[in-house]
Amino acid sequence: MLDRSYKIVARVVVNVMPKAEILDPQGKAVVRALDLIGVEGVSDVRQGKRFELEVDESVTAADLEKIAEVLLANTVIEDYEVVGVEVAQ
Amino acid sequence: MLDRSYKIVARVVVNVMPKAEILDPQGKAVVRALDLIGVEGVSDVRQGKRFELEVDESVTAADLEKIAEVLLANTVIEDYEVVGVEVAQ
Repeated sequence: MLDRSYKIVARVVVNVMPKAEILDPQGKAVVRALDLIGVEGVSDVRQGKRFELEVDESVTAADLEKIAEVLLANTVIEDYEVVGVEVAQ
Repeated sequence: MLDRSYKIVARVVVNVMPKAEILDPQGKAVVRALDLIGVEGVSDVRQGKRFELEVDESVTAADLEKIAEVLLANTVIEDYEVVGVEVAQ
């Protein structure tokens, strides 16, 4: 986890994807469009969202879960994952 | 005995994000909404797209670049990265 001994800014990524059992018309549209640009071999595409958050050291893992669950994802139809990417002083 | 009658399928992720110099109203809306749920310490949010593609072994790296550049991203205002995630036989 974050080292609390100095000022930190971290970039956190939250990925939000449609649940597997939910239809994804945007992804299906991409699959169909692949014919137009002559690419074969792509059997499925799912489209979701990627959020990049710049957070300071006061933001806890619980905060990030809350942000993802309440604000970024609709958990009825979407799954999310919180990924810490890089930490810079 | 190894069954070669089915194809190798890989999951490829393409991340598409607004370029740094481009305004991101969706991300800004998230920052403002953070006040509503009582979270402080998030200085910036950028919202982009995440695509998960199921591809077989006939799809080349050049194909993936083409898909990302022509179909998934608007390269005037967005950057993309192609990330290979996992391969399953």
